Parts: sequence; structure tokens; C-alpha cells
Amino acid sequence: MKRRSFLKATAATTAVAATGAFPKPALSQNRRQWRLITTWPKNLPGLGTGAQYFADSVTKCTGGRLTVKLFASGEVVPAFESIDAVGSGTVEMGHGSPYYWKGKAPASQFVSNIPFGLTAQEYNAWYHYGGGKAICDEVYREALGCKFLVCGNTGVQHPGWCRKEVDTLEDFKGLKMRMPGIGAEVMKRIGATVVNLPGSEVAAALASGTIDWVEWNNPYGEASMGFWRHAKFYYTPGWHEPGTVLELFINTKQWDGLPDDLKAIVEQCAYSANQNMLSEFQARSGPVLEQFVTQHGVVIKRLSDDVLTKIGNTAGEVISELAAADPMSKKVFASLGKFRKQQKDYSTTTEGDFIRARNLPFEYPT
Amino acid sequence: MKRRSFLKATAATTAVAATGAFPKPALSQNRRQWRLITTWPKNLPGLGTGAQYFADSVTKCTGGRLTVKLFASGEVVPAFESIDAVGSGTVEMGHGSPYYWKGKAPASQFVSNIPFGLTAQEYNAWYHYGGGKAICDEVYREALGCKFLVCGNTGVQHPGWCRKEVDTLEDFKGLKMRMPGIGAEVMKRIGATVVNLPGSEVAAALASGTIDWVEWNNPYGEASMGFWRHAKFYYTPGWHEPGTVLELFINTKQWDGLPDDLKAIVEQCAYSANQNMLSEFQARSGPVLEQFVTQHGVVIKRLSDDVLTKIGNTAGEVISELAAADPMSKKVFASLGKFRKQQKDYSTTTEGDFIRARNLPFEYPT
Repeated sequence: MKRRSFLKATAATTAVAATGAFPKPALSQNRRQWRLITTWPKNLPGLGTGAQYFADSVTKCTGGRLTVKLFASGEVVPAFESIDAVGSGTVEMGHGSPYYWKGKAPASQFVSNIPFGLTAQEYNAWYHYGGGKAICDEVYREALGCKFLVCGNTGVQHPGWCRKEVDTLEDFKGLKMRMPGIGAEVMKRIGATVVNLPGSEVAAALASGTIDWVEWNNPYGEASMGFWRHAKFYYTPGWHEPGTVLELFINTKQWDGLPDDLKAIVEQCAYSANQNMLSEFQARSGPVLEQFVTQHGVVIKRLSDDVLTKIGNTAGEVISELAAADPMSKKVFASLGKFRKQQKDYSTTTEGDFIRARNLPFEYPT
Repeated sequence: MKRRSFLKATAATTAVAATGAFPKPALSQNRRQWRLITTWPKNLPGLGTGAQYFADSVTKCTGGRLTVKLFASGEVVPAFESIDAVGSGTVEMGHGSPYYWKGKAPASQFVSNIPFGLTAQEYNAWYHYGGGKAICDEVYREALGCKFLVCGNTGVQHPGWCRKEVDTLEDFKGLKMRMPGIGAEVMKRIGATVVNLPGSEVAAALASGTIDWVEWNNPYGEASMGFWRHAKFYYTPGWHEPGTVLELFINTKQWDGLPDDLKAIVEQCAYSANQNMLSEFQARSGPVLEQFVTQHGVVIKRLSDDVLTKIGNTAGEVISELAAADPMSKKVFASLGKFRKQQKDYSTTTEGDFIRARNLPFEYPT
């Protein structure tokens, strides 16, 4: 992924207020005030705005009985200390990306979704009707002291921008790529040189040729980055992150202590925010992609079947190793992997075949 | 679609209780009891269960301040009188399919989504971030006296089951098809003979050869119908219904009279139910499709590009005519059609390219 180093940079330059400087949660006349710490800058497109939508929804639905006040990364604790702040009960809830916590809970990488894994729609189906909810909850409760709720999705991401055309597996050898996460491990094994850079330095590194390739997220998230100035080839498909999940994590004791109606509201608002974030990424990425191509001369390139098949084999190896190395990861993957297998053909006959058919050259009104 | 005649049959055989036999909405100690009339049999897979999920969510979130009690089609009024019962204020809210009301509000056919239109994910994006919410609301408020909220989606449907292989446009000429809605009008112009049959008679008609083709919805919805016994060819893609929307309609005065926190809860629960229904259809259709193929010898067939291109041209003509015939339809389509155009390429580079790549023959753990 791309947010990690971006956030590190953000956290480093943002004042980190001592936790004690913030008021304790108020509980008077049955009115609670909860803090939602996020791992994003305030109103970061899609991710920050999505968390804000959730916070505002809870406040409205509870008529102020549970007021949720959002804090940007670094305002209460640095982004990557969020899970500790919430797990320990210093703060009530947080919003972030599950794989950020892989150091404490390796299985959180699987909770985030995996290379060649599930689309957003499939992930939601797994979560609500495929056992995902209980398993994700177990990962967070045991290792992190938190209640987990799914709360956002980026949709299929783009694997990245490249300064040159990459047609064969050989072309990836020695390619200097900025790509994090499990995808990066896969590309390393393919022979690429993986470089980690904070978000603020990525565009300059691409311009100077320090890196050849940059992965970020999707057109809406990349609109302001200007990668097209330095790299004309925009690759598909997003094998590395086919539907990356964002999470709400809530201190277990605080969650358990909520009355049933407030629990129900938090859950419903998290699910609604989940849909809302994906909707924002989808709605706003369409026109941005169009601009890339028509106004900035960007060329959309598809990785060849041969390249993708070899990347797929390597991704399979990496995932097998991660699942074998940790019992909880194995448990999550056993469920996720089985579900993926059941959905592959159905998604092909539905979204897959339909999207293909819609591109046929028929006349259609606009 | 497929539900219309099914429901007609249901409504005819179900006792239709006089509206007066049901208690008026209670309003005491700030506690409301609302009735949710549905156009489905109780717990009909996906559609009925989805409406029940919404009703239960509101009751839980409000701690009983707003209790929503669900009624099956025919229990309060016949299914197709639901919109009148709610519009007139006899009942507070209903759950159904927008195109059911095309006689009173032709634009509701566009609110339902259209042939070669939007996927579920794109429709949600249009609704939340593409102006869809305000436009749908306008259609319902003006013509039907109701507040509209999106509340469910079937995902891309399958266009149907056929007793024989259909390879060219010529093969559709004279083919006896059970398919309703705008899709039926398209197939008529292609030369098919469109037959309308209640759900209870469809399987027998297929068995006897009275019809050659039946459209219903998706594997989960078709699991109990046994079409595979009489027709081995299961077609894709779902050009006719790429993401059919289900709706919540609420009496305008009742909606306007709700306090803000209850309004917010109803909205959040509708959006959550929207995601939940699609999740149920997706999660449960995958394994059913697998069974069709591996246990019942069903053959998945894709309509040829040539056939689809010609169907696409005809669909474009039908949609242009519908939009030209009614100012509100024109307004809805102006928004929906523009959004569709903006999303086509993005969905191709994301879901489209990814689903294709995932089918490549690499080794992947399960």
C-alpha cells in the first residue's frame, strides 16, 4: 500500500498532543462523548471523509447521546499508535487499515484482503454471510483488545504508474518500484527492487527516475499527486489490492458497556459508511480516469496474461507462507480462501461478463 | 423481471385483510409503531429477508421508540396497491421494486436501473455521490407522495435459462421467452415471443416446452425453482438487469414528521440493508451456481458479442423512447446516463480487469 509512509510523514510533522490534554469521555445524563482517532489527515479524500461520515452519522442517529468527535492522525497519538491507544482504553475508537497492525496481529493482513483475493462486493458478502464478521472480531478481540467493524473499502486499486512499458516478467527485474504490503513481497520475489518512500517524496522520485514505478491507490486518491507528469503508463489490473478494507476498532470494554441500541447504531452506521466510502471512490474516480486519458495523455496498459499468471503463482506462495506462519492467519485464510473459490465463477458470470458486454460497440443514448 | 407475476399470484391467493383491521400507528410516550408493507412473501430469500433485516435494525437502533413491524404482500393490501396505501398515509412505509410503479411514475423504471446500465456498486455511487438521491426523491415525492430510500440490490442478474442453445440473433426469432420489464420490450423487437406467466407456472411451462426461455433473477433466487431439470443452458451476461434496485417508500408526511434522530436512523438502516441484501445474494449465489454446474450438469453459455451488440442497439432505442416520452424520465436518465458513461472505463480497469485476471491458471492456495 501507499498510506503507511505517507502517514509516517504526516505524523512526524504534526504536533502529537499528550493524551492527557484531551478531556476524558463524558458520561452524564446518559450522554457520552467518544473520540474517534484516525490514521488519516483530516478529510483525506475517501479515507478521512469516510471516517467523518461515520462520526457524523452516529452523532445524528443518537441525537447526541453518543457524540463522536473525529481527530486526525497525530492529534491525539501518532497514527501507528492508534491501536494501542484504543486497545488500552485511553481512547474509545479508531479508524484505520487492518494491515497496519500486522506487527501485533499478523492475521490483520488477511482481514485487509489479499492479492488476487476478494472484490469489495465479495468481501462484504464474506463479512455478512460468509463467517467473516465473527472471524475478524476474534482477531481483534484476542490480539488487539478491540471490537472490529468493517468501515470502508477503496474498491479495486490500480497497481501503479510506470515511466516505461513493462511487457514481460523480465522487464520487472531490477525495476525500482514503490509498492508496500504483501504485493511488495511478491514483486521482490519476481525480481523488482522495492523502495519505500513517504508520500511527500514519491512524485519527485518518479520525476528524477529514482523510482520507475509507483503504486498509490485509485484515480480519485491520485488526482492531486500529478504522477501523470512523470509516468505515462497507468497499469491494470489491481491484482495486489482488489478491495482493500478499512476498519473501525473500538475498545472492547467500552463496546461491551454500550447499551444495545447504541451498539446497533454504531454497527449500522459502520456498514453504511462502508458503502459510502466505496461509493465516493467509485463516483469520483470515473471522471478523474477520463481526465488522465483525455487531458493528460495517459496510456492505460494491461499487464499481460503471462505476467499475471506468474505474479499469481508467486502471490499464492507468499500467502501460503503467511498462513502457515501464524495459527490465526491460517484460520482467517481458511475461511477467506474457501469463500473466494466459491465466488470466482459467480462474479465472472455477473460483474465480469456484464462489464465486458457493456463495452461492445453498440449505440446507446447519453 | 420475474417478480411481478409471481406476486400477482401470491396476492390473489393470500387473504387481503381490510386496512382498518390493523391498529393505527401508536404514538404514546414518544413511541411509534410503524407498519412496513412489502411486495414479497415473508422471508422470500434476499428480498423478504432483506426487508426484515431493515425492520429489525430500525427497531433495535431506536430502542423501540420506532418499532417497525413487517407485513408480507397481501397481509395489509395486495402487493401492487402498496404504493397507494403508503402514498395516502394508510400505512407508513413499504418495500418493493421501483419499476412496479411505472403506471403512476414512468421514471420509476429508471430508478430501478436499466438494461446495460449500472452495476450495484456504480448505482450506489450514483445515489450517494452522483446526484441520484435527490433525483429519486423528486420522482417519489411528486408522483407518489413518498420519500424514497435505496434499500437493496440483487446484483447483476442472469438473463435466463434456455432449453436449447441460442447462438445467433436469428435463433431468438420466435423463441418463447418469459422475461418482463424493459428487457422484454427489447426482446420483442429482436423477434422473440414474450410470454407472461405467474411464478408458480414457470417451471411447468418450461418442462412442457410452452416456453423455451425463462428469466428469473440469480442462482440464490432460483435455487428452489429447479429450472435445471428442464433447461440445461444458463446464459450470461445480465444485460437486461445489471443491478436491480429495491426501495423503501415512506409516506411523505410521516417522514417529514419524524424527529431528526429517527430520520437519521431510518436512512442509515436503509443503506446498511442495501449492502446487506446484495451481500446475501452474492454470498449464497456462488455455491448454488457451483452446484448447478457440478451436480446438475448445467452449461454456462455466454451470449455472443454479435448478439449482444445488436441487443445493445435495440436497448438503446427503447431507452431513448422511454426518456423522450416523459419529462421526469428524461431528467432521471440525463443524470444516470451521464454517470454511466463516466464509470464505464473505470469499472473496466478495476472490477472488469481484476475478475478476468483472477481466472488465469495460476496456483493459489485454498
